[in-house]
Amino acid sequence: MELSEATAVLAGTPAVLEALLARLPDGWARRDDGPGTWSAYAILGHLRHGDATNWLPRTRMILNEGTARGFEPFDREAMLRTAPVPVTALLAEFAEARRASLAELAALNLTTPDLVRRGRHPEFGEVTLGQLIASWVAHDLTHIGQASEVLARHYREDVGPWRAYMPALNGTAPAE
Amino acid sequence: MELSEATAVLAGTPAVLEALLARLPDGWARRDDGPGTWSAYAILGHLRHGDATNWLPRTRMILNEGTARGFEPFDREAMLRTAPVPVTALLAEFAEARRASLAELAALNLTTPDLVRRGRHPEFGEVTLGQLIASWVAHDLTHIGQASEVLARHYREDVGPWRAYMPALNGTAPAE
Repeated sequence: MELSEATAVLAGTPAVLEALLARLPDGWARRDDGPGTWSAYAILGHLRHGDATNWLPRTRMILNEGTARGFEPFDREAMLRTAPVPVTALLAEFAEARRASLAELAALNLTTPDLVRRGRHPEFGEVTLGQLIASWVAHDLTHIGQASEVLARHYREDVGPWRAYMPALNGTAPAE
Repeated sequence: MELSEATAVLAGTPAVLEALLARLPDGWARRDDGPGTWSAYAILGHLRHGDATNWLPRTRMILNEGTARGFEPFDREAMLRTAPVPVTALLAEFAEARRASLAELAALNLTTPDLVRRGRHPEFGEVTLGQLIASWVAHDLTHIGQASEVLARHYREDVGPWRAYMPALNGTAPAE
């Protein structure tokens, strides 16, 4: 895990989601695959909530307390209990939260030896700062994939027989 | 299928892929999941090739010949036989191909009745223009999902125990 590459991915995510969502009527972003699944809007809210409560707070906890105190559990569905706003407003909120996260991360001046410092995950036990930051990146990317696929399913019927070539049209975006 | 919405998605795809790929070392985009799978670079080349040879030519064929003549088969792996270029160069080629496709699509001045006009697919038989255009959109979105997930797997080991929370890290991007 190369910190400069990780932050490059993290910095690009708001632009990816804006390019995916900003030009479309909100109905696309709010479409989900039924109960227990997430819309692209929910995924965006989940990423925003993660920046506010999960990744940077855990980074600070590793640096300040090591394994002495476990991480707070991350509420993965907090965004589902937030009053809905227009998609462009949530995109702006996420972009701002991400800018703030990356500014704070940069201010920590992390070095390679910091990446093996350890914290305590409520479920996994001891984890390293490098694993945490790599997971932040992979979490962005897997959720971008999930968001793009749930958008694709807006046309799952409209594509007619081409559905046979696009297995993702038969999937769902489970809460994860 | 609403044509203005379909073209909004199609117009955004180059920016999505640029935000995903342009800031990263080319090694990320060239990473695949082994034989028979596609890297993000291959997916980008596949989309570019589709704009040049598949979607618009088939649109024209429906309008000009209806079902009288079948579509040319689409060579889904043509990009794998093309000499590699830097990722930013391929991003620019795709953006230009997409701009040209959408300019040509706009010049056709399609109306809602046009969307039920029919052509002949080499495998599916009769299909409508609306199905073709919806498939172009869904094809972009499912491949963006696939590209984002193959990028995520760059960190499949680095994430350590978090891998348990991200099932997409165990997948592959099959040629499709």
